Amino acid sequence: MAQQIDQETAGSEQWRGLAQQLRADSIRSSTGANSGHPTSSMSAADLIAVLMSKYLRYDFDEPKNPNNDHLIFSKGHASPLLYSAYKAAGAITDEELMTFREFHSRLQGHPTPQVPWVDVATGSLGQGLPIGVGVALAGKYLDELPYRVWVLCGDSEMAEGSMWEAFQHAAFYKLDNLIAILDMNRLGQTRETMDGWNGDAYAERARAFGWHTIQIDGHDPEQIDRAYAEALEHTDAPTFIVAKTKKGYGVSFLEDKAGMHGKPVGADQEEQALDELGGTNDLRVEVQKPDRGQPSTASSKSAPELPTWEVGDEEATRGAYGAALKAVGASRGDVVALDGEVSNSTHSQEFAEEYPERYFEMFIAEQQMVAAAVGMDVRDYVPFASSFAAFFSRAYDFIRMAAISRANIRLSGSHAGVSIGEDGPSQMALEDIAMMRAVHGSTVLQPCDANQTAHLVAQMADREGIVFLRTLRPKTPVIYDANEEFPIGGSRVVRSSDEDQVTVVASGITVHNAIQAIEGLQEEGISVRLIDAYSIKPIDSGTLRTAAEATGGRVVAVEDHWPEGGLGEAVLSALASQTGGLEFEHLAVTNMPGSGKSEELMDAAGISAKHIADAVRGLLNR
Amino acid sequence: MAQQIDQETAGSEQWRGLAQQLRADSIRSSTGANSGHPTSSMSAADLIAVLMSKYLRYDFDEPKNPNNDHLIFSKGHASPLLYSAYKAAGAITDEELMTFREFHSRLQGHPTPQVPWVDVATGSLGQGLPIGVGVALAGKYLDELPYRVWVLCGDSEMAEGSMWEAFQHAAFYKLDNLIAILDMNRLGQTRETMDGWNGDAYAERARAFGWHTIQIDGHDPEQIDRAYAEALEHTDAPTFIVAKTKKGYGVSFLEDKAGMHGKPVGADQEEQALDELGGTNDLRVEVQKPDRGQPSTASSKSAPELPTWEVGDEEATRGAYGAALKAVGASRGDVVALDGEVSNSTHSQEFAEEYPERYFEMFIAEQQMVAAAVGMDVRDYVPFASSFAAFFSRAYDFIRMAAISRANIRLSGSHAGVSIGEDGPSQMALEDIAMMRAVHGSTVLQPCDANQTAHLVAQMADREGIVFLRTLRPKTPVIYDANEEFPIGGSRVVRSSDEDQVTVVASGITVHNAIQAIEGLQEEGISVRLIDAYSIKPIDSGTLRTAAEATGGRVVAVEDHWPEGGLGEAVLSALASQTGGLEFEHLAVTNMPGSGKSEELMDAAGISAKHIADAVRGLLNR
Repeated sequence: MAQQIDQETAGSEQWRGLAQQLRADSIRSSTGANSGHPTSSMSAADLIAVLMSKYLRYDFDEPKNPNNDHLIFSKGHASPLLYSAYKAAGAITDEELMTFREFHSRLQGHPTPQVPWVDVATGSLGQGLPIGVGVALAGKYLDELPYRVWVLCGDSEMAEGSMWEAFQHAAFYKLDNLIAILDMNRLGQTRETMDGWNGDAYAERARAFGWHTIQIDGHDPEQIDRAYAEALEHTDAPTFIVAKTKKGYGVSFLEDKAGMHGKPVGADQEEQALDELGGTNDLRVEVQKPDRGQPSTASSKSAPELPTWEVGDEEATRGAYGAALKAVGASRGDVVALDGEVSNSTHSQEFAEEYPERYFEMFIAEQQMVAAAVGMDVRDYVPFASSFAAFFSRAYDFIRMAAISRANIRLSGSHAGVSIGEDGPSQMALEDIAMMRAVHGSTVLQPCDANQTAHLVAQMADREGIVFLRTLRPKTPVIYDANEEFPIGGSRVVRSSDEDQVTVVASGITVHNAIQAIEGLQEEGISVRLIDAYSIKPIDSGTLRTAAEATGGRVVAVEDHWPEGGLGEAVLSALASQTGGLEFEHLAVTNMPGSGKSEELMDAAGISAKHIADAVRGLLNR
Repeated sequence: MAQQIDQETAGSEQWRGLAQQLRADSIRSSTGANSGHPTSSMSAADLIAVLMSKYLRYDFDEPKNPNNDHLIFSKGHASPLLYSAYKAAGAITDEELMTFREFHSRLQGHPTPQVPWVDVATGSLGQGLPIGVGVALAGKYLDELPYRVWVLCGDSEMAEGSMWEAFQHAAFYKLDNLIAILDMNRLGQTRETMDGWNGDAYAERARAFGWHTIQIDGHDPEQIDRAYAEALEHTDAPTFIVAKTKKGYGVSFLEDKAGMHGKPVGADQEEQALDELGGTNDLRVEVQKPDRGQPSTASSKSAPELPTWEVGDEEATRGAYGAALKAVGASRGDVVALDGEVSNSTHSQEFAEEYPERYFEMFIAEQQMVAAAVGMDVRDYVPFASSFAAFFSRAYDFIRMAAISRANIRLSGSHAGVSIGEDGPSQMALEDIAMMRAVHGSTVLQPCDANQTAHLVAQMADREGIVFLRTLRPKTPVIYDANEEFPIGGSRVVRSSDEDQVTVVASGITVHNAIQAIEGLQEEGISVRLIDAYSIKPIDSGTLRTAAEATGGRVVAVEDHWPEGGLGEAVLSALASQTGGLEFEHLAVTNMPGSGKSEELMDAAGISAKHIADAVRGLLNR
């Protein structure tokens, strides 16, 4: 029978007892799995015991309660501790705890939101804190609710730059609802960390970044108690608690021992370890429930009145993105925008000017930007984050992890491909389609005109998963009427006739190059079907197959991207078992571009109208 | 006729004159291009004028001289200033300067090593300083030469976490040969930076990270002079010079004006701007040449004596990587290794233990790790950097930029795919092949056994570009004799006969699953050809085409990776125009995996022997 800890009267003795139980359960679960990180869990057990017993306000029966505090294990490998805490809170049984790391158990090696009390997946270090910044931004500026965000950080992950992006942004935005707890156990995976037990080093850095800092002995419950109380009282700045701890604390042959990272206690030593911890236990802690309150940001929702353009107008798709985002922002209060300090390039500026209270400047910190979007999605906002498409490569690990978190975020990447012109290759996204396609459950869109862009932006707001929109720097002519529909997963047959001899598949800028090519070919008597694959993932396999079949398997794919993983290979996958075989020509960027005018660079890359026409002729002459 | 500045007698008047010329030339070149960043160049002109006139030691006639200082513009958009400085040094003509950003000009929008005095491409912010750390590590610990690394940083890029990775690592490694100069001009692209002109904020942070710091007026040549002198005298720590500057300094309608980022001066205003700067000029600065000296690290080179395994042995390919890397390290002194504090997982530890003086612990900071590898390549070392393959996604922007830098770096990513087992999806690389294939000029390798791994590691040392090796966590049986050859770009036909009905293409762990499947199918009388595509890029198109043709176009590709951009699409690209058509079946990971045993997860993902056999049968029954 579980023994209940009374919050009112509980003090260091009870906290110590609970911490020992968390340690014992961390050992039991990982020894049972013969895998996992008990020692990294044991160092932080006192920190979590006091937090759960006295400070955390969380309704385990209602994990989506907007008033809940948020507890994020940035050091996700301490999952045995987290799951042991769930057991102590009565959220899971001891039996379930012992399924740790088993096939089909939701108690995975690293936490994921398959467990309803886990906000986001962690396990790639340095992500929990920046995501916590996102949740805290939502709490302070959108929900305007008094919940707190508690983030347990490891000392090894302090080497990740993303942590320092979080430090900067949390201070800049005065996130006094954010408390980061550093489990400074000194030991990394293979050796001592750069700063060991130099708590002053960490504290000075955090202070220099504008945080309130507290240094404590992380195994002294009374010091922990005072630190948490102080953190809650501090306003105008986030708090960083540097807790000096020992890895494997409480067991003689684990404590502060090198070489014990990520190693479970052997079954033969388990009894001794548990004995040293005072045996197993079944203490139960009643976690406080939060006060009631409603988010202040309206979640009203109507169909957006999208901006429209006349056929023949000239507008960049990035410009249309900005206008459409503003329209979507008008139609629903849960849409928020973030940008990496290039909002006048991506055009998210239009949203920022209209809805400054729902716009978050993330400066040149793409990891923090994506992490903040993930954190806002935790609170069910609908974030659109924009930067140059090339610079989303900076945040790829965050995007990958966001997919594991089942996050719904929208990313708009401008300045795609060589068509950007003079800025040169550092600013050209040429791998972004490959990168974004290879994200689980992602959607990859590339419109070619303004009206199409607007329709896709509207759909993005309702789309689940990681949704990427690739926009162009140069202006392009509007070719579609504002009333046309562009469903995600669809495509647009721009030209077709019964005489078509070759299919050209294009997307974005290359649609316009293809139109130009086809007009020339028509004069030569060559009839070409043109498919605008604005939805690259999911791709419209049906239309592609029909077209390929109608044109004798002759297909040209043309893209402003490296040849690997982009439109061309998406088309090949769709046509992989094309009956009767394919005659496939792939035009893509194969040499490193430099600076120049858009047209010069596209011509040099072999993706201009001339090259498309040549490819069509080449297929017909094979 | 150029007027020479005499280094011996030059003082602030000459420096001021040179700085004004650099400003005028920054305006002239960008106005000529009608594109570029003159105002971001003008703020740093005094800093560069003094550096070039008195402190930089550089032989423009011999850019590969090992004794040269290194000057890296981390704020690559200040390229007009850099090129103007080259003109002042006599390295380029005014005529060439005026080709800025033109098609085919080597003076691109952002610097690239197409210009022989540029070490690395910049333009994605926050990369120059971490790369500078790599060059400085090479200088202090490998070359042991007294050259300095000067890095011009922008204040907007201080928001990038990678800068703080650099701050930590530079201090940890006591890089007193590294001087970072912050051009604190206050204004970003759309607004004021987070810290504006708060020099104390930057200086305190740098100090907290262990740097020597100096704050100056960045437009006062005498203060700049004293700061550089002080930096050169300071030992045991890198120096950070916080220089307060004004964007667009020297021209009334540009100076400290918002909204002028990345905008050239209009042709109609150019004359006024140049007038305010004292007109155009042709001052010439004789940059000091460095003293002579030879790198201390031997560049002797012999064929490595690779480790060998007996057929039937069990060894993980990550284990073979470690053993082979040690062997390659023995055969040549220019090989260096870096790891993201997981060297006992990636097995680079074997190299570290044998050659500690050539091993660099990069801690959990993958961006800094890749940047350091790029910096060491600048000094012609042969870096191998290793981490979990999933965590290279953290450094994707650095890898992308390394390709623009034409860097030769080798990346070894362990723990590929669901086969890692219990750790769960955060640790599983499932997008790494897509990501690495979509890097210009890259090589992507995935061995399936230990002997094959060793041969590939040996070839990696001589391979140009970005070379990625994907290794496995679990042990796999050795199937190849140690004497066999595995050329990059080749493949291995594991099973074949004249009766083959289906081709299976596999790589890494799936080769073993395929062998198991084929053995079962043989008993059913089904004959299958198996191709081990250990070289995924370049892929062995010839062998694939022959096999596909021999088996009636029936091909199964099976990979431990998401379906997009990996082995399957590489195979499709190779077979895109297969005569007679393909019957293609693609087995890849399509659902988000959890924890479990390797076999359980591969089975759930549909890539185990059973699924391969089913796919083969399915193709035959179509």
